[in-house]
Amino acid sequence: MTKVKVSIVGASGYTGGELLRLLLFHPNVEVKQVTSESYTGKFVHKIHPNLRKSTMMKFVSASELETCDLLFLSLPHNNSQNQIDEYKKLAPKIIDLSADFRLKNAHEYEKWYGHKHARPELLNEFVYGIPELHREEMKKANYISSAGCNATASILGLYPLFKNNLVEEDRTVIEVKVGSSEGGNKVNEGSHHPERSGVVRSYQPTQHRHTAEMLQEISFGKKIQIHFSATAIDMVRGLLATCHVFLKENLQEKDIWKVYRDAYGNEPFIRIVKENEGIFRYPEPKLLIGTNYCDIGFKKDDFSNRLVVISAIDNLMKGAAGQAVQAFNLMYGFDERTGLEFPGLHPI
Amino acid sequence: MTKVKVSIVGASGYTGGELLRLLLFHPNVEVKQVTSESYTGKFVHKIHPNLRKSTMMKFVSASELETCDLLFLSLPHNNSQNQIDEYKKLAPKIIDLSADFRLKNAHEYEKWYGHKHARPELLNEFVYGIPELHREEMKKANYISSAGCNATASILGLYPLFKNNLVEEDRTVIEVKVGSSEGGNKVNEGSHHPERSGVVRSYQPTQHRHTAEMLQEISFGKKIQIHFSATAIDMVRGLLATCHVFLKENLQEKDIWKVYRDAYGNEPFIRIVKENEGIFRYPEPKLLIGTNYCDIGFKKDDFSNRLVVISAIDNLMKGAAGQAVQAFNLMYGFDERTGLEFPGLHPI
Amino acid sequence: MTKVKVSIVGASGYTGGELLRLLLFHPNVEVKQVTSESYTGKFVHKIHPNLRKSTMMKFVSASELETCDLLFLSLPHNNSQNQIDEYKKLAPKIIDLSADFRLKNAHEYEKWYGHKHARPELLNEFVYGIPELHREEMKKANYISSAGCNATASILGLYPLFKNNLVEEDRTVIEVKVGSSEGGNKVNEGSHHPERSGVVRSYQPTQHRHTAEMLQEISFGKKIQIHFSATAIDMVRGLLATCHVFLKENLQEKDIWKVYRDAYGNEPFIRIVKENEGIFRYPEPKLLIGTNYCDIGFKKDDFSNRLVVISAIDNLMKGAAGQAVQAFNLMYGFDERTGLEFPGLHPI
Amino acid sequence: MTKVKVSIVGASGYTGGELLRLLLFHPNVEVKQVTSESYTGKFVHKIHPNLRKSTMMKFVSASELETCDLLFLSLPHNNSQNQIDEYKKLAPKIIDLSADFRLKNAHEYEKWYGHKHARPELLNEFVYGIPELHREEMKKANYISSAGCNATASILGLYPLFKNNLVEEDRTVIEVKVGSSEGGNKVNEGSHHPERSGVVRSYQPTQHRHTAEMLQEISFGKKIQIHFSATAIDMVRGLLATCHVFLKENLQEKDIWKVYRDAYGNEPFIRIVKENEGIFRYPEPKLLIGTNYCDIGFKKDDFSNRLVVISAIDNLMKGAAGQAVQAFNLMYGFDERTGLEFPGLHPI
Repeated sequence: MTKVKVSIVGASGYTGGELLRLLLFHPNVEVKQVTSESYTGKFVHKIHPNLRKSTMMKFVSASELETCDLLFLSLPHNNSQNQIDEYKKLAPKIIDLSADFRLKNAHEYEKWYGHKHARPELLNEFVYGIPELHREEMKKANYISSAGCNATASILGLYPLFKNNLVEEDRTVIEVKVGSSEGGNKVNEGSHHPERSGVVRSYQPTQHRHTAEMLQEISFGKKIQIHFSATAIDMVRGLLATCHVFLKENLQEKDIWKVYRDAYGNEPFIRIVKENEGIFRYPEPKLLIGTNYCDIGFKKDDFSNRLVVISAIDNLMKGAAGQAVQAFNLMYGFDERTGLEFPGLHPI
Repeated sequence: MTKVKVSIVGASGYTGGELLRLLLFHPNVEVKQVTSESYTGKFVHKIHPNLRKSTMMKFVSASELETCDLLFLSLPHNNSQNQIDEYKKLAPKIIDLSADFRLKNAHEYEKWYGHKHARPELLNEFVYGIPELHREEMKKANYISSAGCNATASILGLYPLFKNNLVEEDRTVIEVKVGSSEGGNKVNEGSHHPERSGVVRSYQPTQHRHTAEMLQEISFGKKIQIHFSATAIDMVRGLLATCHVFLKENLQEKDIWKVYRDAYGNEPFIRIVKENEGIFRYPEPKLLIGTNYCDIGFKKDDFSNRLVVISAIDNLMKGAAGQAVQAFNLMYGFDERTGLEFPGLHPI
Repeated sequence: MTKVKVSIVGASGYTGGELLRLLLFHPNVEVKQVTSESYTGKFVHKIHPNLRKSTMMKFVSASELETCDLLFLSLPHNNSQNQIDEYKKLAPKIIDLSADFRLKNAHEYEKWYGHKHARPELLNEFVYGIPELHREEMKKANYISSAGCNATASILGLYPLFKNNLVEEDRTVIEVKVGSSEGGNKVNEGSHHPERSGVVRSYQPTQHRHTAEMLQEISFGKKIQIHFSATAIDMVRGLLATCHVFLKENLQEKDIWKVYRDAYGNEPFIRIVKENEGIFRYPEPKLLIGTNYCDIGFKKDDFSNRLVVISAIDNLMKGAAGQAVQAFNLMYGFDERTGLEFPGLHPI
Repeated sequence: MTKVKVSIVGASGYTGGELLRLLLFHPNVEVKQVTSESYTGKFVHKIHPNLRKSTMMKFVSASELETCDLLFLSLPHNNSQNQIDEYKKLAPKIIDLSADFRLKNAHEYEKWYGHKHARPELLNEFVYGIPELHREEMKKANYISSAGCNATASILGLYPLFKNNLVEEDRTVIEVKVGSSEGGNKVNEGSHHPERSGVVRSYQPTQHRHTAEMLQEISFGKKIQIHFSATAIDMVRGLLATCHVFLKENLQEKDIWKVYRDAYGNEPFIRIVKENEGIFRYPEPKLLIGTNYCDIGFKKDDFSNRLVVISAIDNLMKGAAGQAVQAFNLMYGFDERTGLEFPGLHPI
């Protein structure tokens, strides 16, 4: 079988490294080139030591990129929108993992990102990258913009509720707990181990940019509000979104079960996790390390109309590289699970 | 100076151990007896190894208790309400660290605890144990009921806002992140290290009992709602409460500053922590390990009327033993800070 | 292709769970039955939540075991030696992951395990389970006894040196740092998270039983001594052995490189890790989580004849389940790497 | 009582911060100035947030230093030896926490530090800073050079054995497990949380400089060898030294007990920790966080003449700031424990 030839632009970061790992083991892919300006000429396993003995590839400069079937862009925000024309010349298909082409509305982009978008006319060319919401579009897409990690967990947790118009529009509060890999591989004072270890650090209590994606994907034409906060805790990978929504009607837990089963019953990467006993009663991000699953659970408050929805992912997998490969599989008609079979470890 | 003779009933648990540590180094206290039924006759330092070389005390059985000036009760819930008459015979003053006498209303007790209170007529004899709210009552009190740890952080964070009628009554959402010491020293499957390490476990998404204390202390006669959740993370000590409240009026951050300064400007154990730069911008529980501080910060959402209040404590100190000693100091007219001077460590 | 039908006796523990995960995804295997006396009738994913959506198998009692091609025994020590006749009736091939059949010498067994072996006459029926040392025997074996995790890392680190008679016989000191999963899934006071978290606990400074396996495998007919200690640290999976050996001759690092390359140059699961720059200079167990690799590095002391050999594995993989599957592949003539391709994650 | 006026040169680092904390709460000390070139003019609590509400001091530049009674030097290595004349003019007494004046022999300094000492003639002016070994000299000293953290734990663990000529001279192997605070507060790639978290990193397998101090302090005129390695693990504070020594005579554990009791029975900051039951059988660094204790335990190998000595400290306390304050107390005739009473926490 002919393999799809792909290259990764920006492969020295954490997301780029995970993409590379997944693609090296993907049976339908040939990884052609991987770029890094800082490490040009170095073996990739010097930076991603887990790949020792798996590949002898070296980083090249982006200036050396050749044409290929599909480009993965895994660059800091703002790069894609400024260089998009060059990338389009290199490949007919692009999956961008930055935030540049996630929003459809240029005004919203400016509101949340604080500057004008460089290429607003292209915003609608990109399909927003959550397969569970945009599967059919992806099958025909040439350009996909992968979703933010916090947005992915939050949207997947709340989508069935907002879609079915079950929750009050303006009251949703989401608190995500995130690990240090979300901040990328650049050293800073806050990431210094003696300071970062053991923290419960309220790093973005308000106005997190991922909120804009959530509003775009689950408002369904209504004016809704999402009150989002992010707290950094002592973990490397993983993300738990605790979503507090308020039900319009007096639904029971069995009704909520039905809503989620109807929405996600056939999804290969979504599991409803809700047990009445044992120690694994709700989603737990550590069990998802290395997997592409999004685990979703919930609990109805007996004393009010609050429903707490709990959603967990591995931020570098379902929140980034894994989701991008899932979208890639859809674009090429491969089984959606190809290359994403790792079930996770226990204990870990 | 004559020292106050105190005994601790239930001194083998984590809270009892911390109480003992604080009291052994308190200049106005003589610790007379400490009880444990499981470890009767053993040196306390076999169970609390930090006290090696600090004391040669041994645990006695509660049946051997002699009279003293004040009894600290640090027992599992339900014990105090059933044995209170015996304890009253042993000492004219009591500080109870269990949940038994925190609520004033027996109906509320039954609603949240699921059974009738054994001695509802005594509920009003106890002063609720947060000194910042009940200082003057404590100075005259014989019986004090120490507050729950989650309640302490939440109440101290929100008290000035509710007192001044600044927030919408029914919309408050509180998410606390807690460590494993909150669960006590009894082994269980969920506390087994390979399972507990690295968790972000939604252990009580709704109906947490501490909610009842919050409602009691900050409703000020109104009907309010507090939507509380607790998530266990990989830490031993410490607690961060992230409180989402919604302002009735368009207040600015400088207005909020004033509210907190007015409320807590003279408090020895409350610090307003809010920096615009650096890595210590909001309260951080790890910096409070071993201290009696409650650090409070906040952030106003520019895009809505939400105010995020962030409140941190050491659950075993300001959330239990430290707060009890602070109350003790007030009861006896000692400087409130006596025995509680430890400022915490950095780095940690 | 006909698949090999295997069953796992004792599949509710950590090693049994990892075996099950590997075998479920092994292309040449059909997992027939998995036993647990405590969880008979329960879905395996209730105990191994990572397997949700991967299998709907349930635990059966060992009394319900049917015949199969190969039995994996993953039971507490002492069980295999007492029940071996029953197991032999169920399957013509057995891989035992307990310590029961690791030693060839019944006197050594008694010395280190403190009691007589139940079936000393069978000790020589089992091949000791490190493929790198016993590959050819395994290809013809019916019975394999998987090696201990500490022994595996230590033996693989030192084997080329002792084989080539390069080190002083009586001076080797080995210090392993181990995680909490090594202790299994049974709760105990020492594994309670508040006590176990953050420890550097000298849990077995002398007389560790795995020493006997090391002596057996690397003494090559000489009388040698291995001074072994194990320290538990705050991690779940992983093991680093720091081995201090003393060279007989004045070898340089390039000589040592050659010794290891000659020994392991073609090994699929051994990597020599030794860099002069960067942050990944020596083996690091966290990079091996979920993999079957043993990474080995070394450093010669410029001021003495000491050579420090550093060897890392995932104790549940190369130290248990992974190594057992590697042996299984050899027994059946499959590619040794089948089902063990996962390269590990970075960051983690 | 007149207080001793002290200043700290280099107070923005972790050791300087801990010194400041201890001295602010020391009843016989007035902290006059604290210097930092990077943070001149800033409140110290911006850098050491645990000191919020404890002091309103600001950092000054070293160029603004005024005369005082005693200077603490807490600077990177090499600074003290080059600036010592200036410091001597500022104060009649100096405690240097760098490595510059620890060694008495300039040749040894050059061997281990790789460059010539700038002021070899001054090396003998400084008393080596372990009070348990040099108490009487300290009482008369004007200049003290605080010991290295790894050296402190190792020396205190082995001193009684070497002093009494009980162990073979050339066979000692020491493996220390260290936390990230030992590396100081400067950010680097290896300290980035996603890379540093969870490591068991062999950061200095051979030729660690602290070895030179050990040789100086415990050789007692003989030619001895110490084979030292350091492994970084996932903790912030704390250090455990596992020391493997080989006994010349057939001593029993009760004999070893006697050796340690004779040596340390009256020491305020040394505890012999060795229990036959329970979970606190050997020294555990996490129990020492914030304390000045050195806990020492041991285990005799039944199968050889090896004795394993286990020694734990808080590297920033007994290994740095705490030990310096202990020395300070001796210089001034204060009770050695003054300002160092904190007993540590449990659980932690």
